[in-house]
Amino acid sequence: MNLLIKGITAVLPEGGGYTTRVTDVYVGGGVILSVGAVPEGFCADKTISGGGKLLVQGLVNAHTHAYMSLFRGRADDLGFDDWLFRSILPMEQRLLPDDFYWGTLLGICEMIRSGATSFLDMHMMPEKCALAAKESGMRSVLSRGLVGESRLDKGGLRRIREAEADIEQFKGCEKLSFMLAPHAPYSCSPDFLEAVAETAKALDVGINIHLSESAREVRTSFVKHDLSPVALINKTGLFDLPCTAAHCVRLAGGDINILSEKGVSVVTCPVSNLKLGNGVAPVPELLQKGVTVALGTDGAASNNSLNMLRELSFLALIHKGVRRDPLCVTAHEALKIATLNGARALGLEKTGEIRVGFNADFAIMRLDTPAMNPPPVGISSLCYSDCSSSVETVIVGGEIIMENGCIKTIDEERVIFEAGRISGRLGSAQTL
Amino acid sequence: MNLLIKGITAVLPEGGGYTTRVTDVYVGGGVILSVGAVPEGFCADKTISGGGKLLVQGLVNAHTHAYMSLFRGRADDLGFDDWLFRSILPMEQRLLPDDFYWGTLLGICEMIRSGATSFLDMHMMPEKCALAAKESGMRSVLSRGLVGESRLDKGGLRRIREAEADIEQFKGCEKLSFMLAPHAPYSCSPDFLEAVAETAKALDVGINIHLSESAREVRTSFVKHDLSPVALINKTGLFDLPCTAAHCVRLAGGDINILSEKGVSVVTCPVSNLKLGNGVAPVPELLQKGVTVALGTDGAASNNSLNMLRELSFLALIHKGVRRDPLCVTAHEALKIATLNGARALGLEKTGEIRVGFNADFAIMRLDTPAMNPPPVGISSLCYSDCSSSVETVIVGGEIIMENGCIKTIDEERVIFEAGRISGRLGSAQTL
Repeated sequence: MNLLIKGITAVLPEGGGYTTRVTDVYVGGGVILSVGAVPEGFCADKTISGGGKLLVQGLVNAHTHAYMSLFRGRADDLGFDDWLFRSILPMEQRLLPDDFYWGTLLGICEMIRSGATSFLDMHMMPEKCALAAKESGMRSVLSRGLVGESRLDKGGLRRIREAEADIEQFKGCEKLSFMLAPHAPYSCSPDFLEAVAETAKALDVGINIHLSESAREVRTSFVKHDLSPVALINKTGLFDLPCTAAHCVRLAGGDINILSEKGVSVVTCPVSNLKLGNGVAPVPELLQKGVTVALGTDGAASNNSLNMLRELSFLALIHKGVRRDPLCVTAHEALKIATLNGARALGLEKTGEIRVGFNADFAIMRLDTPAMNPPPVGISSLCYSDCSSSVETVIVGGEIIMENGCIKTIDEERVIFEAGRISGRLGSAQTL
Repeated sequence: MNLLIKGITAVLPEGGGYTTRVTDVYVGGGVILSVGAVPEGFCADKTISGGGKLLVQGLVNAHTHAYMSLFRGRADDLGFDDWLFRSILPMEQRLLPDDFYWGTLLGICEMIRSGATSFLDMHMMPEKCALAAKESGMRSVLSRGLVGESRLDKGGLRRIREAEADIEQFKGCEKLSFMLAPHAPYSCSPDFLEAVAETAKALDVGINIHLSESAREVRTSFVKHDLSPVALINKTGLFDLPCTAAHCVRLAGGDINILSEKGVSVVTCPVSNLKLGNGVAPVPELLQKGVTVALGTDGAASNNSLNMLRELSFLALIHKGVRRDPLCVTAHEALKIATLNGARALGLEKTGEIRVGFNADFAIMRLDTPAMNPPPVGISSLCYSDCSSSVETVIVGGEIIMENGCIKTIDEERVIFEAGRISGRLGSAQTL
């Protein structure tokens, strides 16, 4: 389908940052054909009038567990053990296979509404999560969570086989791709991680892992292995593959050097890290060392939102306050982290900017709210003004998946109904 | 007007915190007549169906400069001097009297949309700001900003007289009250502050002041006066009046004791403090010492949003991360800070809770978005889930000022138009 977005204020890359300009954007074959001039022979199948609206490259949620939207608000203001062992895990064990489908769709609805066009999901249920992602029309990178006590652990090996089968089943789906997701250094033995690395190499997929999230994780790693979690993972060979590491809150100087040398992408999850009391990731130092830093919401059990624009605000604000430096992580840097860097972390080529030849992944935002006035709206408006509910249309690979506030690929009311039904069955968890 | 809100999930005070329960709320004479049982002889003039909705006490924005919404997005990612002296002050000097009226209305629109029902405003333009507040139907506490180099400073004395005239002009307006607002310890001499204290005492009004916002303010105070800003203000007699102090980011232990002993209300402005690189206020210590801590957005020049639900999220999340304690500033504490404590800081009696005899100040929120599902919705949903755009109806003193997303007291489209016109005239400021 040929799509013309006409007379819109577009966020365009310029130098290392962005500029905004009123222009026309031409889309065909799922990619951006032209910004400004009419491509030769172009005939629009559909035209969107962009007057008074903002066109932004789609946001990339580089770390989430979409199905966990089912647990939203069910385990808040708790210490880590009460949160994980007495709330989340017992609820997770009560989930049936179809629950993962509905939970993933619920998370996807919230992501789409916030202008996200791509996400990297770590889940526990092959087929169901991929099916939801496929139907939604989002550009999705799916990774089956893996835990294992040794390279001979039967459960661990079964999970690896499930991941392989998932990849086999959905290969060829245009907007789906896959990674393997060894859960964390503390939930996988070093030799199991080596086995995962070998499988990923054979399958030609990248790695998605939780890393250096809490002080306790780091302490335990030193006690058990005499190495930091980053140094430990480096030994397993996982960093020799394209690797995306979520959190990385607690890093020593040597860790940052390893991540930089190995080209590991780091996904910062500021809200989750605040809420669980884990702290604030050293994003400025990571950027300074050339690490690709991306942005993720984490799951709704520890956030409790998958709204990427809200997450972008936290990213752009928190480092300034904690470092007492109003220039730390600028609006332009934050937007790049939430879009282009996210696409890189997900292994998505030509994605994350409004640039000719790039995937036509966009959010169109209303500018007629008091919160977004007066004009002009600039990059800083995306980071600091309250725009988190301004998205009205979302386009992924040239396909309109939300139009004027209505998600076209998902029966949202049904999803909310099913989520309520499942939540009722989960029952006993605490609600504040 | 008698109002019945029927079958709604209401946030009700219980113990030191809150609970939620489906109930009916009866309103008459601007106050809550009953929660649950029908008051004798009650006849509803209007009934609101509350099915699937949440009734929350109105939020109280205890520190803002509503007119500064005109400067939204015009001075971002700047050091303090570039921000204040080369951006904000030059724009402020170009404002005409009517601009304050339109700017204040713009800020009020955003506040209402976020469920705020009361605010404390520090402004520079008598009559215009009060007029906007009066028309809006919000419960408003207005305070003319005062600066003066000595108690004989002609400009300073003129500003005090303007404040007196403003109070005289609008006395008797039901939802308006007043304070005097000496700007800050660094912009007012000690003897000018004494003169302000004497005037406030004579007028029987409280004090609204910026205090201990930045490291530089504290350093300068010690160099000039050999006292911390808090100790200096304590000497001027301002703390012997009902006093609301905004920011209080940089406090020594002795400062907290003074604030506690003198019954000063502290308004924390987490987003503004982050954005300008001032840091994170010691809210846990203030609460521990029994200080009334309230919540404010500050002005849009340093936020850039007046959305109180967004601010509430930051309040509930940031201390957990910075203190590495997931139990620090709980959802219940944060909600109380944003409502009941705010009302106390503003000198508003019987305001800030859904309790019989209290002012009927409410927000009604939609619960049918993916971001607020699955049920049940609890107090934590207000703080951690993305509810910042879920408010659909706002009631202040029994008057419906927003209904189903439409602000009834203000011509919002006109306000946005006028704000754009003014912003165009302000011209040269930087936009990222």
